[in-house]
Amino acid sequence: MVQPPPKPSSGAVKFNPFNIRTSPFYSHVAHTNGPCTIVTTAGQIGARADGSVPADPVEQIEQALENLRKCLEAAGAGVQDIMKLTYYIVNYDSKNPRHRPILMKFLGDHRPGSTLVPVEKLAAPEFLFEIEATAAIPQYPTERVDVVVVGAGLSGLTAAVELQKAGLSVKVLEARDRVGGKTWSRSVQSSVCDVGAAWINDTNQSKMYTLAKRFGLDLIMQNTSGSIVCDEGIGSHKTHPYGQLNADTTDQAEIDDILRIRDIFEQTCQKIDISDPVAQDQKLRTKLDSITFEQWLKSLGAGRGALNALSVGTRAMLGVEPSELSALYFLDYCKSGGGYMQMRSDSKDGGQYLRIKQGTQSFSNGLAEELSPGSLVLMSPVRKIEQIPGGAKVVSARGVFEASRVIVSVPTPLYQEIVFDPPLPEKDALSKATKLGDYGKMIVFYRTPWWRKHGLTGMSQSSQGPFGVTRDTSVHDDGHYSLTCFMVGGPARDWASLYPEKRKNAVTHKIQQLFGSFAGVEEPIHVEEQIWRNEQWSQGCPCPVMGPGDFTKFQHVLRAPAGRIHFVGTETAYEWKGYMEGAVRSGERGAQEVLLSLNKAKM
Amino acid sequence: MVQPPPKPSSGAVKFNPFNIRTSPFYSHVAHTNGPCTIVTTAGQIGARADGSVPADPVEQIEQALENLRKCLEAAGAGVQDIMKLTYYIVNYDSKNPRHRPILMKFLGDHRPGSTLVPVEKLAAPEFLFEIEATAAIPQYPTERVDVVVVGAGLSGLTAAVELQKAGLSVKVLEARDRVGGKTWSRSVQSSVCDVGAAWINDTNQSKMYTLAKRFGLDLIMQNTSGSIVCDEGIGSHKTHPYGQLNADTTDQAEIDDILRIRDIFEQTCQKIDISDPVAQDQKLRTKLDSITFEQWLKSLGAGRGALNALSVGTRAMLGVEPSELSALYFLDYCKSGGGYMQMRSDSKDGGQYLRIKQGTQSFSNGLAEELSPGSLVLMSPVRKIEQIPGGAKVVSARGVFEASRVIVSVPTPLYQEIVFDPPLPEKDALSKATKLGDYGKMIVFYRTPWWRKHGLTGMSQSSQGPFGVTRDTSVHDDGHYSLTCFMVGGPARDWASLYPEKRKNAVTHKIQQLFGSFAGVEEPIHVEEQIWRNEQWSQGCPCPVMGPGDFTKFQHVLRAPAGRIHFVGTETAYEWKGYMEGAVRSGERGAQEVLLSLNKAKM
Repeated sequence: MVQPPPKPSSGAVKFNPFNIRTSPFYSHVAHTNGPCTIVTTAGQIGARADGSVPADPVEQIEQALENLRKCLEAAGAGVQDIMKLTYYIVNYDSKNPRHRPILMKFLGDHRPGSTLVPVEKLAAPEFLFEIEATAAIPQYPTERVDVVVVGAGLSGLTAAVELQKAGLSVKVLEARDRVGGKTWSRSVQSSVCDVGAAWINDTNQSKMYTLAKRFGLDLIMQNTSGSIVCDEGIGSHKTHPYGQLNADTTDQAEIDDILRIRDIFEQTCQKIDISDPVAQDQKLRTKLDSITFEQWLKSLGAGRGALNALSVGTRAMLGVEPSELSALYFLDYCKSGGGYMQMRSDSKDGGQYLRIKQGTQSFSNGLAEELSPGSLVLMSPVRKIEQIPGGAKVVSARGVFEASRVIVSVPTPLYQEIVFDPPLPEKDALSKATKLGDYGKMIVFYRTPWWRKHGLTGMSQSSQGPFGVTRDTSVHDDGHYSLTCFMVGGPARDWASLYPEKRKNAVTHKIQQLFGSFAGVEEPIHVEEQIWRNEQWSQGCPCPVMGPGDFTKFQHVLRAPAGRIHFVGTETAYEWKGYMEGAVRSGERGAQEVLLSLNKAKM
Repeated sequence: MVQPPPKPSSGAVKFNPFNIRTSPFYSHVAHTNGPCTIVTTAGQIGARADGSVPADPVEQIEQALENLRKCLEAAGAGVQDIMKLTYYIVNYDSKNPRHRPILMKFLGDHRPGSTLVPVEKLAAPEFLFEIEATAAIPQYPTERVDVVVVGAGLSGLTAAVELQKAGLSVKVLEARDRVGGKTWSRSVQSSVCDVGAAWINDTNQSKMYTLAKRFGLDLIMQNTSGSIVCDEGIGSHKTHPYGQLNADTTDQAEIDDILRIRDIFEQTCQKIDISDPVAQDQKLRTKLDSITFEQWLKSLGAGRGALNALSVGTRAMLGVEPSELSALYFLDYCKSGGGYMQMRSDSKDGGQYLRIKQGTQSFSNGLAEELSPGSLVLMSPVRKIEQIPGGAKVVSARGVFEASRVIVSVPTPLYQEIVFDPPLPEKDALSKATKLGDYGKMIVFYRTPWWRKHGLTGMSQSSQGPFGVTRDTSVHDDGHYSLTCFMVGGPARDWASLYPEKRKNAVTHKIQQLFGSFAGVEEPIHVEEQIWRNEQWSQGCPCPVMGPGDFTKFQHVLRAPAGRIHFVGTETAYEWKGYMEGAVRSGERGAQEVLLSLNKAKM
């Protein structure tokens, strides 16, 4: 098992003076511990992202603390870095301090200083609770290295490891408290589940397969034995064996239409040259980029069944609706994985062929472990990259670092979180033209793989939501049996805005509805949830998409260096965009670019 | 046109986390950006400097923000450095947030975090608004140079430029966000006006004339054609040609008295040896320093007319009353400019002979531009100068600098703003013995120079206030026509405490009253105002004065170095004290002292 790197130490030292009345709920004093970045927040009230404010004071307190957590995370600070909290409570009742258990859960073991101020009212009549924090983030000394890599996902880590192998000094600055980006594996009982990227294959994903061997990871073939369940609108709620067309066999006209559309799609897709998807047959390409994927399907006369099936496709693959992305963009995306059929396949050569028993984050942890000690700085979001004579100055939450070259590995839409000085207008326009999909997972754990007993693969498809597809993500050796439900695209948006308990109920209810006619559905024993849209440092998943007109305009900007800054990330890959394979390949490209620019490449 | 140096960058980075409800009025998070000095303020309420509190809540908010601005300025912080604001509002009404437009005007483009706390009451019943801030000032790395110059007025800049010419490394630390000290030129429409120092001449002010040539500045001869207007008490509200005695021609006894006193004054003045005003005829000097200028005039039997005329003199020249300064001090001061008659003259060789079309701040900007890049640190008040083995450590808001020698160029009374370690008891006593005058300007702009059409110079004299004198400060080539009104000495104090609109009304009303009988006074199209007494880094204008007994005690301390610290400034000059000429000459002397002490002077 590959060990994750340790989290950075706290910036604030908290303690109590001698001979003073102490409290279990706070410390009397905190001080910074060496050079620090100081973080202050505005008073956080219990408003949700959409501006609504729960009426329940307890929900308000929870939401306010969630907002405070977001503020700290965006600054690279953790709860452990908080020095001081001040909170204002309307209708405060000292006999019923209902904020306390919620706050204690938020703080964990940490006890910053705190001041509780009962108030008659707050800035708006509906606000009942407000909390603000001062935090301190310890600073590493400024250091000059050959290369700073921004982001420790697979692309950034790959680039960093390659550069160190070539003898360069590298600093990797990661905004989160972990490496891996959208590879994120969580321990559940005695097993592991992947809330982000989950699959590789052992043929055309050669980079990932090599890494799996290098880190001694165990591969699990995706279960495809048995039937899949189709919801109304895609096969009228029935099952059929894996690999068959997901359509109602009783309606031959619809089947013919779906097959026809799928064939045109696949044929058009196969004609794309991924090395330059716009250049050849420019007129057709420009036309395909000028319309959405949905408009293109409709122009081919696609019926309801074909539209539904391909909606499930764009949702499950990119978290967006067919109306939200350029037709050419999607064609190129699919071709990057060998075509639509191969990218969606769970079989040999397909995009979902092999899972990792230890979780896909093991790839990232493994790469992080290969870095020389001290190369990696977690919880250190980069807010500014200044190009200076002879290099660049990178300002991050935990220190300022100088380098001859910088590799930026964050998703394209997140370039806007960084101030580039001088500004990079082309990258800024690219960033604004890309959009990340709505992508969530709920992994539902059961005592047994009840679906298998009834000849089901555990796979399902629905155009209605809340989830679009499910997969069997069990690890038999660990006694781990789970179905992973993918909340993707339009239906995911309503679902994500629900209160947590309701999100869970919506998913388990849908599982019962889909599978209940064909199998005895067990009571879940645990669920793990991840909504990538809500993550400060993802803002969506798995790969940024472009709307009509932008792919022809910006695809040449995607990989272009800007002065001493280079850009990697799965969306900049030629092959397997949106997949771990694409991330690693883009990281290798970035490393090569830097080595060439510094005259360090092996000839 | 000489360009002003750019202002330093902000210490606080402000931003919003992803996926949170945002507000146009504040940012959710701020953090420091590299090493910073952290500034906190007390809660600022709407009390004026005299302790009075306006009843109007809007005026209280404005005053509280003005007080906050003063706090920040005194620390070297600008609005852009604010990370967090907390404000407390009595009788808060969420439907009428009247603090908001005032606060937005105060903040400009900056959006620190904020918390609004409605409260039932504050520390005193009349307080309705209180605001406190946390700010961060970015730090330059500690550096060792040959010389640190404290203050980038004309004296400090002159010293710095001379030292760099001699090959020394110099750092200039300036408290304000601009260079120039009391040279301050503001752009108004397509012209420039001087709210501080305004005149030079081309004969006995050779340093300034040389600088004007060096920077290619255009000189404007002060308008003296036509009559001046005299208020009641100085000529009983009449006009007479420029250069004639300002007295009522119908009262020959008064004229004789004024002429007699003026002659004694001028003759006594001419006998002063500016190189050592106390040494020769010590008994007489000691006597003249033991009484105020007013006491001396009275001892000579001066009548009301003479006393009034010379009151206008001390006010216009030093911002003080004849009862507030030592007779010897004033005699020496006048002699430094060649005598009372010459110093007050607007003609050839006089103190007010030539104005600068581009504004006098061009001298300072020009010198600043001659400094090597990176020598100048704005917004960096010095709070401590520590003499250490081999040099001195200078602690400023934006960094700590070490030097072999330090030149302090701030006005004598402001030495008290700096902690000297070890203490400098003589300089401290000197500082406490000097006092800056009340000096304000209101520059009133008109469409045409209406006064000229009626044979007036635009010059007036009044012993009654609010202003003591006026001058025509037009720039014909720019289509700029203005009268500058000098609010000076006793009458300036009441005026300065008025609310801004009332200050303007008092001035325009007085212009009408003085000039209305002799000319058709136009409606002003614009006014520019400057009250030097209210400035943190001036505390008055133009030159510190001493009361009885102090000049003999301290004049030898004025220019004396203290260890490795040297002192310059217009009040330390031999010639043209209180003028730009004196500042530049003192700066040259300071540079010479340092070069000699470091054995770097050209022999």
